[in-house]
Amino acid sequence: MNTAIELYGANTGNTLRAAIALEEAGLPYTARRIDLRAGEHRDPTFLALNPAGKVPTLIDRSSTPAQVINQSNAIIQYADTQAPGRLSPAQPGPERIKVFDRYFFFVTDVIAPSHAAFFLRQAGANDAAALIDRRVLEQFSLAETFLADEFMAGDRFSMADISAFTIAASIRDRLDWTSLTHLSRWFDAIEARPAVQRGLKAFQHFPE
Amino acid sequence: MNTAIELYGANTGNTLRAAIALEEAGLPYTARRIDLRAGEHRDPTFLALNPAGKVPTLIDRSSTPAQVINQSNAIIQYADTQAPGRLSPAQPGPERIKVFDRYFFFVTDVIAPSHAAFFLRQAGANDAAALIDRRVLEQFSLAETFLADEFMAGDRFSMADISAFTIAASIRDRLDWTSLTHLSRWFDAIEARPAVQRGLKAFQHFPE
Repeated sequence: MNTAIELYGANTGNTLRAAIALEEAGLPYTARRIDLRAGEHRDPTFLALNPAGKVPTLIDRSSTPAQVINQSNAIIQYADTQAPGRLSPAQPGPERIKVFDRYFFFVTDVIAPSHAAFFLRQAGANDAAALIDRRVLEQFSLAETFLADEFMAGDRFSMADISAFTIAASIRDRLDWTSLTHLSRWFDAIEARPAVQRGLKAFQHFPE
Repeated sequence: MNTAIELYGANTGNTLRAAIALEEAGLPYTARRIDLRAGEHRDPTFLALNPAGKVPTLIDRSSTPAQVINQSNAIIQYADTQAPGRLSPAQPGPERIKVFDRYFFFVTDVIAPSHAAFFLRQAGANDAAALIDRRVLEQFSLAETFLADEFMAGDRFSMADISAFTIAASIRDRLDWTSLTHLSRWFDAIEARPAVQRGLKAFQHFPE
């Protein structure tokens, strides 16, 4: 696809969150796969875009100079700004505040500790990782109460659902679905969304 | 002070970030101290506001029903919305995107792992906590490069400086200030801001 927006990424949670946000916002973009196993994130050309050598990175070449965004959450908020109303209520007010409150719950209280556990496991600190993982799983009993509403932050799909869905998907084998009945219903509904499906697949169809 | 906004909190990083954001935004608020050692965050009245039993929590009673915000980052973005231009550029565009990109770097790559390390140390997993702490310190060499600009995200103070300052302050004894010359200059400048000083003290002047 010939578009102004390129999303550099890999098949990781942070990339998939950004891809799903672009898809749900209806913003055309080209997926550019970074082969982490081949160390492409350490190539000087990529480091020039993202000095931390992490994925995802978004480039929007519609402006001069091109806009580079390195943080997945900043990409999500960029998508929200570019397509008002698709990822959060466009107008300031209680509904919009609720979306941000729930969104940040998943960003800081669920996804961030999961990343810490991943890092610890890579470093061989498996017991410490397990301590954090247990706490992450516990957060979903609070998420279950959010789903008195249809979605994570009210009666409309929002960026809170994107952050919640990608992390729930990554630990779906460890969640106690029989006690999380609202979460189960919600997960199936989010997974079935065409834009979510496109986002999930955006970085899969490349030769390894 | 008789205001519509109440900030429930304690002398923690998350509370201080929210307090500094309100101060820098120029929004009047009343600080309501939650005594964590006395377990006030587990009182039913507080849990009714914040089911997770965490601080801070903001209540804005200027609307009906009152607006409750539980996530410190959602409070910061609420302050940004209420006082456009004070915490980020009011207009969409490259400067605003840069603020969010840098802001999220500190939220997810510095503050979040610090919280994980704190949790691990409380659980007695000191070696794992030290692994994460070392990585947190390393992030500040990237932050040092941001400060080719006067502030963390350009030539104006922003919410990126709030998140960066509070976490730098919390580990100031362990940062290698002699190699972080830009950071040192920046830290002193942020610390000297009257609104930052007021925010830092907002939850200190209560009887223990």
